[in-house]
Amino acid sequence: MKLQKNNFTENFIIKNYFKKLNFDKKGTFNFNNDAAYLNLKNKKYKFTVTSDTISENIDFFKNDNPKSIAQKITTVNLSDLFAMGAKPHSYSLNLCLPSYVNYKWLKDFSEHLKKIQIKFNFYLLGGDLSKSNNLIISSTFFGYIDKKIDVFQNKFNINDEIFVSGNIGESKIGLEILKKNIFVNNKLSKYFIKKYLYPSPCKLGSMIAKLSSSMKDISDGLIGDLNKMLNDRLGAIIYLNKIPLSLNTKKIIQNGNIKLEQLLNAGDDYCLIIISNQKNRSKIEKIARQNRIKISCIGKIISKKGIYFDSQININNIKEYDHFS
Amino acid sequence: MKLQKNNFTENFIIKNYFKKLNFDKKGTFNFNNDAAYLNLKNKKYKFTVTSDTISENIDFFKNDNPKSIAQKITTVNLSDLFAMGAKPHSYSLNLCLPSYVNYKWLKDFSEHLKKIQIKFNFYLLGGDLSKSNNLIISSTFFGYIDKKIDVFQNKFNINDEIFVSGNIGESKIGLEILKKNIFVNNKLSKYFIKKYLYPSPCKLGSMIAKLSSSMKDISDGLIGDLNKMLNDRLGAIIYLNKIPLSLNTKKIIQNGNIKLEQLLNAGDDYCLIIISNQKNRSKIEKIARQNRIKISCIGKIISKKGIYFDSQININNIKEYDHFS
Repeated sequence: MKLQKNNFTENFIIKNYFKKLNFDKKGTFNFNNDAAYLNLKNKKYKFTVTSDTISENIDFFKNDNPKSIAQKITTVNLSDLFAMGAKPHSYSLNLCLPSYVNYKWLKDFSEHLKKIQIKFNFYLLGGDLSKSNNLIISSTFFGYIDKKIDVFQNKFNINDEIFVSGNIGESKIGLEILKKNIFVNNKLSKYFIKKYLYPSPCKLGSMIAKLSSSMKDISDGLIGDLNKMLNDRLGAIIYLNKIPLSLNTKKIIQNGNIKLEQLLNAGDDYCLIIISNQKNRSKIEKIARQNRIKISCIGKIISKKGIYFDSQININNIKEYDHFS
Repeated sequence: MKLQKNNFTENFIIKNYFKKLNFDKKGTFNFNNDAAYLNLKNKKYKFTVTSDTISENIDFFKNDNPKSIAQKITTVNLSDLFAMGAKPHSYSLNLCLPSYVNYKWLKDFSEHLKKIQIKFNFYLLGGDLSKSNNLIISSTFFGYIDKKIDVFQNKFNINDEIFVSGNIGESKIGLEILKKNIFVNNKLSKYFIKKYLYPSPCKLGSMIAKLSSSMKDISDGLIGDLNKMLNDRLGAIIYLNKIPLSLNTKKIIQNGNIKLEQLLNAGDDYCLIIISNQKNRSKIEKIARQNRIKISCIGKIISKKGIYFDSQININNIKEYDHFS
């Protein structure tokens, strides 16, 4: 009744590819129990929990590099933790694996997970494996944050400033290149496809939780996510020429390959939208500078409901992106 | 850009079917944030975390009642929490929904979740929705337990007694009836199919954590799970005539429809295997009696590795059940 090493069983996969990812934490019982214990030794903190699923043909393609898939499942979740002002603690992983997943795939996937775990300092708590037609990965992430801090998505005031981290639209351009809707030279193509396949979460959120009124990561597009934050309560004016774009993105726009409007609506950038009182601006900018994270003040909160631009743009081209529709 | 009420969007589904399931807990932010805060007010406790996935065609059938699917995703997880000695606290839910899922389905599914939440006193923290070809549900459950208690799956000694809660094999018989491998009268058919479609977790585990050496829920069959607990370290002798069977199950065996061997290997019963020192037996039995939970002492731990029966049985018919293979 013992599992053979050459059987591709749940135990075999866990022992060979995922066991090291627990980083020897006691509460994981080396994945020998059906559940794990989770405890914060420092009583100052509370847990933050977020859960996300990514699926073949929706969030990635069948033959995508397993490293890219590991990058995506961690980034969607880490990005949510950072937007809540939390630092990563641990995670659980539910893998629905189709038959094409082999040893090589599992090796690359789990090694890339380990790399990201080391980078952001968190460990694997447990999870489960099942079979399916398509590859589907669900993951629940745990972060920790000072008990006294609550980061709401829509608790800000008129005249608060709106910041965005990083550069927007790069992942979207990468996707359009992969879909052969945009044709560019090899160098540009590589640059943008990498942005699409290996998105990074923005850890700034966990460093400025006390200084921000509200934060949210951009998963459904800058306009769509900002709109969710406004929640039909207040409005925003956006300084169009302050929207952060990389030099490469500017080239793509100048060549007429894509319009700025489309990028304002581009999902999966995982930049942070930060709304904060003007008095905190210099402190936030200092922390960002010290950590070499680009942030740009792109607008401010106004009383009139809706999102307005300081220059001409065809707002009708902007539609909210819904992962589900 | 506002979501229309007649659109079947993520926001619409959350607002209409899942929002009430947060039981007005502050840390869930009414599901308006991308993550939730999780905090135990009583410093005596730590969290227990478990995560499980159930999939169409593997753990349930396409046209199964959504109430049955709600029952299964909660039972697999609650059962793990109870086996770790924990009481339920909260959970997150990741739904991969195919196009056949409609309003009626969501209503029945979410209402049944609510019923179970009320019964076992836990609330929905958050989660996410995505589309897929098959229905796949992942869920992470949080329980709480005294910080000082660790329930290991394989920390017991020679002569410790082995208990099982409930009656084994009923879910398996229900499945065989549904698959038309067993034909019985209408009344028996209804009885067993209900056991298969609506399995219950055994809360006894959370009441006797201090008194047990080790616990595990039966998800892969009594023999398979006991074998995992033995972990090639010790052995067990099983008193075959003490295996708990319902009167209905005895009828099925007597009619030659199924063999006891098959039931010893039957997954998804969610009975608990409890291993404890003889000195705790009367206390455990008293707590079980007070809570009207059937438990049976079915054997004891011995030094010789392997599982042995006190009477004739063809052990070759018993194979470990692996959800994944």
